[in-house]
Amino acid sequence: MTLILGIDPGSRVTGYGVIRDTGRGCEYVASGCIRTGSGELQARLQAVYRGVCEVIRLHGPVTMGIEQVFMARNPDSALKLGQARGAAIVAAAEQDLAIAEYTATQVKKAIVGSGSADKQQVRLMVMHLLNLIQKPQLDASDALAIALCHAHHRQSLIPHGLLGARRRSGRLRL
Amino acid sequence: MTLILGIDPGSRVTGYGVIRDTGRGCEYVASGCIRTGSGELQARLQAVYRGVCEVIRLHGPVTMGIEQVFMARNPDSALKLGQARGAAIVAAAEQDLAIAEYTATQVKKAIVGSGSADKQQVRLMVMHLLNLIQKPQLDASDALAIALCHAHHRQSLIPHGLLGARRRSGRLRL
Repeated sequence: MTLILGIDPGSRVTGYGVIRDTGRGCEYVASGCIRTGSGELQARLQAVYRGVCEVIRLHGPVTMGIEQVFMARNPDSALKLGQARGAAIVAAAEQDLAIAEYTATQVKKAIVGSGSADKQQVRLMVMHLLNLIQKPQLDASDALAIALCHAHHRQSLIPHGLLGARRRSGRLRL
Repeated sequence: MTLILGIDPGSRVTGYGVIRDTGRGCEYVASGCIRTGSGELQARLQAVYRGVCEVIRLHGPVTMGIEQVFMARNPDSALKLGQARGAAIVAAAEQDLAIAEYTATQVKKAIVGSGSADKQQVRLMVMHLLNLIQKPQLDASDALAIALCHAHHRQSLIPHGLLGARRRSGRLRL
């Protein structure tokens, strides 16, 4: 049994999701949004750092998945996203979590089966895979999707005979 | 007497400089470069975070100046710089340092008197202002320049009668 954290960092809102990989499937543990407010940069980054530390302390994940960013957005938003990402990664690294990065396409393929799925489709599949009744917020749902993708890729390292029946065509089946 | 930290973050090298503002001028305390190596992102950001923590623990600065980034570089380098910057800011914020941001132009104006000075000119003035015999590395010199700029702007908040004679035309005089 492994507790897995997924983080979707942003300059205003950082989504988090924690799942439990039982070896037979994944279960929902917690999810939510860390809001950084509109204060000074220092306070906003500290909110991300402390928020991630708090989630780790509360739920005890041992590994973290985070979205790898490839984008053609403007340098200013890239800098802001980078700062939030740096704060989140340092929080996890300082608490000895192993960290893996996944592209948005990898996450969507693992969850929906298609790299071009939109956020709503990802959320629907996250709800289905984790048996959620209530809709999580989109940032939280993205974070849960990253955690599920991380669980999927971690399991790929386990010999096929053991878990091979649980997945087909690159998509996660629980 | 106030100990001031200057940080010049980068994805590969983060320069740092510590000065002592005695109220009558600034003295050199320490400077150097935190090299992040070529390992995984997690290890590189942790090197920045821990390096800044170590400098703060060793020298005890209570406030930090950091360069504010306005740039037209590509989003990829902006993201990487942002990550290092986030790690450095969180390290200082978690140790209760007050943080101020200065544009490159503000730093150059405070040190050289001209916003268009190059790195070599800045280094020469840093050496002059702090009575340094040896040339610091450029990243360390930039960090010392940011610390001096921060000292300058902090003192501007003190009533003119007290310290007004020490500066003219926006340039730092020690």
